[in-house]
Amino acid sequence: MEKKYGISQETIKRMIRYLRYLEIQKEKGVKIISSKDVTSFLNVPPAQFRKDLSFFGGFGKRGVGYDVHNLILKIKEILGLNKKNSAVLVGAGRLGSALIKYPGFSDINIDIVAAFENDEKKIGQSLKNVKIYSIDGIKEFTRKSRIRVALLCVPAEAAQAVADILVDAGIKGILNFSPAALILPGDVYVGNVDMASEIGNIIYHMDRKQMQ
Amino acid sequence: MEKKYGISQETIKRMIRYLRYLEIQKEKGVKIISSKDVTSFLNVPPAQFRKDLSFFGGFGKRGVGYDVHNLILKIKEILGLNKKNSAVLVGAGRLGSALIKYPGFSDINIDIVAAFENDEKKIGQSLKNVKIYSIDGIKEFTRKSRIRVALLCVPAEAAQAVADILVDAGIKGILNFSPAALILPGDVYVGNVDMASEIGNIIYHMDRKQMQ
Repeated sequence: MEKKYGISQETIKRMIRYLRYLEIQKEKGVKIISSKDVTSFLNVPPAQFRKDLSFFGGFGKRGVGYDVHNLILKIKEILGLNKKNSAVLVGAGRLGSALIKYPGFSDINIDIVAAFENDEKKIGQSLKNVKIYSIDGIKEFTRKSRIRVALLCVPAEAAQAVADILVDAGIKGILNFSPAALILPGDVYVGNVDMASEIGNIIYHMDRKQMQ
Repeated sequence: MEKKYGISQETIKRMIRYLRYLEIQKEKGVKIISSKDVTSFLNVPPAQFRKDLSFFGGFGKRGVGYDVHNLILKIKEILGLNKKNSAVLVGAGRLGSALIKYPGFSDINIDIVAAFENDEKKIGQSLKNVKIYSIDGIKEFTRKSRIRVALLCVPAEAAQAVADILVDAGIKGILNFSPAALILPGDVYVGNVDMASEIGNIIYHMDRKQMQ
């Protein structure tokens, strides 16, 4: 498969949405799917779906539909999700504990293999078979296990310092759940998830809409 | 306080980040805080922080710093988070169950008061004191309790249909955790959180960066 660059984040995020939808259909026993089926449930314009796939070569036959199994394999290959991606979680607090138990990650082949903490009361315990280690040991662990992805669930004021430790430990991708905006080297990729901000934002705009 | 319109989503999200940071400092007993303290931990340029506050009138004294307690009250008032916002959760599956237990919402005065399901095995049960009701009863519940916010945690293929039910039930703000893009009336405000997409996106871009 030809590797293409310059694909937008929005395209990639839609590809993952297609993938997750297709996997649910596959579990239900669906073998062939039309672009109309995929796009209507995700509310993506059918032309957008075809355009997104075309970036990577396209793999449907007009009028025949897509082989669900093959399309899943292709999208996983494109996204690098055809192999297991091990990840560490840092900060086994309230949110971190919930995320360890969230199976949405394993659905896309992401495996949280260890958690790291600086709270001595938590170190040595386990959350859903994931052991909690001292943050002091993270570099040795990630280097030995060649782990490149981390979920960062520490408070805002610790986030940058812990992210710096992660970078030093060889981490190349960080999913940041703290409200801090991280400043990191150019070869480290960061995504941000801030549920409280999203809902606060909704409430603000909802109130504005009611007033207008 | 003068109400201003046309404030960007990014400004509002930063305001919530300031708020969350300030609340942590308040819990620690901090009374006065400089803009430098706030911005350095959140990695926001100090000028941005002052500009954001100035949209709403500004409330610091140059060289003196901000009164933490007052600044929290002001930001909460601006954001509509000075009053409790009750919310319902729809879809008490794997993610929904984790979110009910996530205290990050109550930190910003959002109170999940009920969960709704179509799975008869779950209806009647409770998750952390939140009772699970049949989705059939949602309109009566939200109308009676005047609830305007919903967390949508159903699978992609059900998301639009359930969102339509929510709109009919008077919901004006939806935080959508499904990968579906919702199509809704103009007076309903939607935010999207898709953790699996975020991490898949990281892995894709991380791999591209390694190859370049």
